[in-house]
Amino acid sequence: MALMLNEIYQQPRIIGSLWEKQGDAVERVVSDIRSRDIRFIILAARGTSDHAAIYGKYLFEIKNHMPVGLADASVYTIYDSTIKMDNVLVIGISQSGQAPDIIEYLTRSRANGALTVAIVNEPDSPMTQAVDHTLCCCAGPEKAVAATKTYTSSLAVLYALSSALNSETDCAQKLAGLADEMTKTLGIEEYIKSRVERYRYMPSAVIVSRGLNLCTALEMSLKVAETSSIGARGYSAADFLHGPIGSIHSSDPCFVIAPPGKALGVMGESLKKLQDRGAETVVISSEADLLECASVPLKMDAVVDEELSPMLYILPGQIFAYYLSRARFMDPDNPKGLSKVTKTR
Amino acid sequence: MALMLNEIYQQPRIIGSLWEKQGDAVERVVSDIRSRDIRFIILAARGTSDHAAIYGKYLFEIKNHMPVGLADASVYTIYDSTIKMDNVLVIGISQSGQAPDIIEYLTRSRANGALTVAIVNEPDSPMTQAVDHTLCCCAGPEKAVAATKTYTSSLAVLYALSSALNSETDCAQKLAGLADEMTKTLGIEEYIKSRVERYRYMPSAVIVSRGLNLCTALEMSLKVAETSSIGARGYSAADFLHGPIGSIHSSDPCFVIAPPGKALGVMGESLKKLQDRGAETVVISSEADLLECASVPLKMDAVVDEELSPMLYILPGQIFAYYLSRARFMDPDNPKGLSKVTKTR
Repeated sequence: MALMLNEIYQQPRIIGSLWEKQGDAVERVVSDIRSRDIRFIILAARGTSDHAAIYGKYLFEIKNHMPVGLADASVYTIYDSTIKMDNVLVIGISQSGQAPDIIEYLTRSRANGALTVAIVNEPDSPMTQAVDHTLCCCAGPEKAVAATKTYTSSLAVLYALSSALNSETDCAQKLAGLADEMTKTLGIEEYIKSRVERYRYMPSAVIVSRGLNLCTALEMSLKVAETSSIGARGYSAADFLHGPIGSIHSSDPCFVIAPPGKALGVMGESLKKLQDRGAETVVISSEADLLECASVPLKMDAVVDEELSPMLYILPGQIFAYYLSRARFMDPDNPKGLSKVTKTR
Repeated sequence: MALMLNEIYQQPRIIGSLWEKQGDAVERVVSDIRSRDIRFIILAARGTSDHAAIYGKYLFEIKNHMPVGLADASVYTIYDSTIKMDNVLVIGISQSGQAPDIIEYLTRSRANGALTVAIVNEPDSPMTQAVDHTLCCCAGPEKAVAATKTYTSSLAVLYALSSALNSETDCAQKLAGLADEMTKTLGIEEYIKSRVERYRYMPSAVIVSRGLNLCTALEMSLKVAETSSIGARGYSAADFLHGPIGSIHSSDPCFVIAPPGKALGVMGESLKKLQDRGAETVVISSEADLLECASVPLKMDAVVDEELSPMLYILPGQIFAYYLSRARFMDPDNPKGLSKVTKTR
């Protein structure tokens, strides 16, 4: 079995056992957040990990009522400036723990007064030396260049932290339940495999979602760009209406990620607007109303809380990217010109 | 003269007189920021205004050393949650002052303890009723659907605020000097007009920059998408290397925005990587080294401080979008399916 597909299938097991492995470490972070009077959070990451950061931003704002920012590492690494970090928690996310710009951001933030946490999959990596606390994805070695299991497990770590910070005691149970639904969802593989050839020659793609699943749209578009070398663009459905929709022509492929939850209503409106422009709409949802309107429905059998849904709804995206890459006679495990660890400054 | 081109040409005059018109209002905001012990800033905006917000984020972090976040309005408008806003300044940006989601974000943030400021071009618009302070772009009525002068004047307002917050006394002088360089830069029109046909049939485009000019890459890509209906994608050069570069094929058009300044070095590295993939590189810069490497150089005659350069470097982007639209037999003043005010929730 290809590395990427194999790693996609490992995800339910990793998510299901995450609290057991990292619960104590998460509680130690929560204790420090309280004792240090943390009032603001900054998430620092690149690429796939940055999409995990975007999930974290929504989660900490919606569930924990704390204002959250995303780091622009260049403020330190290029502009050599300083940010006042009193009462700030800075969380760096990097599967390899080697991202030099994120390590510098954490190091300088800590020196400026921040409480710092690294979320990594490599527990002995350089990033863990730079921070107060390390939380591990516990996903095991990831060998495919395109990250899958380190993505969903980063989300699970963020979910665990947000949940513990709210003194919720059902995180283990929630993640175990999610793992079961993820297993069920992987059954979509055969259907995607049978439909993917239609997109063999698509020159580009747009993928939209909203709110908690904005990360899903961005991450699916990155997987398609990485594995299939197609210029896919992910958007918040709201931002998309403020201009980018002007680039959609009749029959352009647009993927609409619409899990049940509070963002479902606006996703229905976005779907309608894409249809008005004559786009081909591929709808990933469990909702019959939306699936009926789709050019191509990708029906999700499982339903979970909206706050957990990004870990479920990325699965069809990962599987689609994998099979599209194969349909294009490419190697999804080793995309041309990309490497597992990208170092930027 | 077309509305959009006319408004592009109005920009130097608007920027040059901005401090005179808004300096007192800016100083009142600064006074409140100090008396309210503001320690964190959130910028809330959509579309073109969101690109101004991204400029503001870099500016307030680099120059004012304050941590800054960008608002996800849906935390209030869709998830109906609450964010603790003590010691937070929330700045909403909307040329029309009508964006309902941004107005709600400001209203709820103010109720939760934030100091709130609206940056608008319409001084009597609904957004001004929701906030503690209004700063006006003073750009006069903008009639073209694609925003140009309200973009650069929003940047100028943010620059003025950042400058005054640092007790700098030369803002009027800096903006007047910039206005002169903007006038000089508009001389690039004839050259762009003569070269734009080459891109008549480009199926998509990538536009990269970094740091303070990330906003320029995003805004130029939005102008191209809006006026020419081409799926242009703007990226931070660092984020671009973490995956999206995998979608670049030989001869794909990639625009590299590289003003002199601290980010110039990494832009040179990005240019090299794009050339390694065989991309066609259009380089917008005043630097001979980079221009010599370009497939097509767009030479900038003017040089300004890097922190002012986004107001200068968007000009060729606006002009390019305008002439590309005309070369594609489209109406840049009235892009199909877009309207001047987009309302999202």
